[in-house]
Amino acid sequence: MNTCSLERMTDKIKTFSQFGDAGHGGITRYTLSPEDIMARKEFVKRMEAIGAVIEVDDVANMYATLPGTDPDAKRIVMGSHTDSVKNGGNYDGILGVLSAMEVLETVAAEGIEHKHPLTAMIWTNEEGSLYPPAMMVSGIVCWDWLPEAIKGKFKYDDMMVSKSVLDGEDTFGAALDRSGYKGDKKFRLNPDTYKSMFEIHIEQGPILEDAGKDVGVVDCVLGMFNYRFRFYGQTVHAGTFPMPKRQDALFAASQTICHLHQEIDKLGYPELVYTTGEIVCHPNVHTCVPDYVDFCIDVRHEDPKVLDQVLAIVKGCAEKEWAGCRCEVEKMWNRDTVYWDKTLFSYVKEAAEETGVSHMVLHSGAGHDAQFAAYMLPSTMIFVQSKDGLSHCEPEYSTPEHCTSGATVLLNAVLKADKE
Amino acid sequence: MNTCSLERMTDKIKTFSQFGDAGHGGITRYTLSPEDIMARKEFVKRMEAIGAVIEVDDVANMYATLPGTDPDAKRIVMGSHTDSVKNGGNYDGILGVLSAMEVLETVAAEGIEHKHPLTAMIWTNEEGSLYPPAMMVSGIVCWDWLPEAIKGKFKYDDMMVSKSVLDGEDTFGAALDRSGYKGDKKFRLNPDTYKSMFEIHIEQGPILEDAGKDVGVVDCVLGMFNYRFRFYGQTVHAGTFPMPKRQDALFAASQTICHLHQEIDKLGYPELVYTTGEIVCHPNVHTCVPDYVDFCIDVRHEDPKVLDQVLAIVKGCAEKEWAGCRCEVEKMWNRDTVYWDKTLFSYVKEAAEETGVSHMVLHSGAGHDAQFAAYMLPSTMIFVQSKDGLSHCEPEYSTPEHCTSGATVLLNAVLKADKE
Repeated sequence: MNTCSLERMTDKIKTFSQFGDAGHGGITRYTLSPEDIMARKEFVKRMEAIGAVIEVDDVANMYATLPGTDPDAKRIVMGSHTDSVKNGGNYDGILGVLSAMEVLETVAAEGIEHKHPLTAMIWTNEEGSLYPPAMMVSGIVCWDWLPEAIKGKFKYDDMMVSKSVLDGEDTFGAALDRSGYKGDKKFRLNPDTYKSMFEIHIEQGPILEDAGKDVGVVDCVLGMFNYRFRFYGQTVHAGTFPMPKRQDALFAASQTICHLHQEIDKLGYPELVYTTGEIVCHPNVHTCVPDYVDFCIDVRHEDPKVLDQVLAIVKGCAEKEWAGCRCEVEKMWNRDTVYWDKTLFSYVKEAAEETGVSHMVLHSGAGHDAQFAAYMLPSTMIFVQSKDGLSHCEPEYSTPEHCTSGATVLLNAVLKADKE
Repeated sequence: MNTCSLERMTDKIKTFSQFGDAGHGGITRYTLSPEDIMARKEFVKRMEAIGAVIEVDDVANMYATLPGTDPDAKRIVMGSHTDSVKNGGNYDGILGVLSAMEVLETVAAEGIEHKHPLTAMIWTNEEGSLYPPAMMVSGIVCWDWLPEAIKGKFKYDDMMVSKSVLDGEDTFGAALDRSGYKGDKKFRLNPDTYKSMFEIHIEQGPILEDAGKDVGVVDCVLGMFNYRFRFYGQTVHAGTFPMPKRQDALFAASQTICHLHQEIDKLGYPELVYTTGEIVCHPNVHTCVPDYVDFCIDVRHEDPKVLDQVLAIVKGCAEKEWAGCRCEVEKMWNRDTVYWDKTLFSYVKEAAEETGVSHMVLHSGAGHDAQFAAYMLPSTMIFVQSKDGLSHCEPEYSTPEHCTSGATVLLNAVLKADKE
């Protein structure tokens, strides 16, 4: 049993929290921004200090590798992303990179023998918060292995011209060119060089905290679908148009959101989550009855049969009029539940048991780079307790102790994989 | 009994519809834009052609006056605005200017004798669609006479720095300076020079059409209030946060909009109108539960007691939690019902009866420049039937016959006022 260093982990969290510090306890660190490049330089500095060899692929993913005793053995890779959402926190993504660094630093400091090379990895542009979509670069790198239904979203040429949400002009490709981190395609993650992938991430939910567990052993990423609702009414003047003749698209959308809650809750699945997070209203003027509103619903559950039941409710909404408005629903995307590699999952579980870290089995409701990597090579994830379940916001927090426990579980799981 | 010219009116509607033609049957003609200046030049050309004298005040209001037989008599003014909303129609505002021009042209062509000078007027920036607020310039000109509760919204210095909604930099004051229409303050509408004001406007509602009436004799502008609802929840991840612990601000707002409809409709006032036309959602991302939503409600009725009953429902919403979110309501503004001058109202009614134009008495649900003028001098309004009750949109339409009937009623009502 090996243990990671609380002191070293705390120092890394503190140091990396400066890169993009927005002055309110969190960070804004868009991919390939000056702040992201500061984080990448710190990664290189610390990894070179323990003798790791740095490689950078053509989409700015970075790989720091400590050689193993067997020159022919495939690498075991650990990693996550350094970029954040706008006004995000100090843990989402970066914790997976810091944990991978901590594993390598512990191996180097303690002289732990290992057969396979061990690699700490940075994925570029996981959030997609400046250049959409999210998980862009794992989509590019794992493209050949992705299911056909997902491929269309991540075509290399489309990704290179993905426009900045800030100015609508700058592109991801241009950011890559000027970053100094456009390396060689031959260094991309691939199943000939790498044997398995581990990713540590904060839970982004309150389940571990509520259960009093430090670490989650993750069995799958939940299947999900995203549908768009559109309501077509008629713009008329707020002061002059009698109520019974109105076709109010915002009232229609409000009724539908309430109906969805009522009907989906009746299904009675406690693990089902659904969200109407985005709404557009036209003309969105206080003196006009809205003639057009759309919103999207995001629904997640492990069991496709449960998702089908929700989908029937969603589709049923288009069969009637709401507040005099026509309703359309359209599928935006969906994905099936992705199960992690059973052997790696068992290594993580055993490592948690042996190191005495309190833990439980969890699903992942969120998407992560490892989920695309899983189509290419055996992969798994470890979750670390999130305070109040908060993420993608500045109060996002995990204690240094929980973070270090996560790294310790990772280290011991990786050493089990190394024995194969 | 005198009659306006269908042919001349049709020609004016057609000509002015070109100034800002957006190619889809409607116009975008922001105040003091090149398109608005084209309309102003056409106004000057046609009014000078019949011998009217042009004056321009310091906020670009324009006055074309035909002298009367009594050199000491005060002027009777008719007018409305030339500016439109974005993608607006060919009637809202401009019809009041064209009708005033038509009255002067008929008086000139027929040699109709009149004691008082007759003035056709253009109000600047009624819509406030480029430089808010709406009714800005009537607010400025009538400021000394406005009720204290309204004055704060129309301070001259604030209005001059009102920023363009398009670029957030250009100001109304700068637009005024470069327009070439910044005239002399002494020409402003005032009760020493002017004795009464008439404004023709499209109905912007379906009541005249449903009743088969050409023209509305307007008795008042409805009292109204505008309140803002704000909901405070918590942003969490759409995929990872269990439903029972969520504080979803958009679900809260949706429930509240449905509740408002249910409770306000129970009051059972058929003439009451209320609108939730504008909504803001944060962070408005499909993978995040919204932590903040606000929307506004606009409520209008003649009777303040009815408005008070609705206000009690609005305020009651803040006393409970909605979907785990705190709710605040805040008054944005309100106004009392403004009754038109009873004598002018009776002139319009008599003129409609004598000319055989089908008509009915109507309230105005919308705000108009004449409503601010009414604090300064006797004023009234005439409505013209709107097809399908549509306005502030490209399909906005009134037939040339209805428009000409409106002008005929206006002409005869003005001639009655001239006899005083």
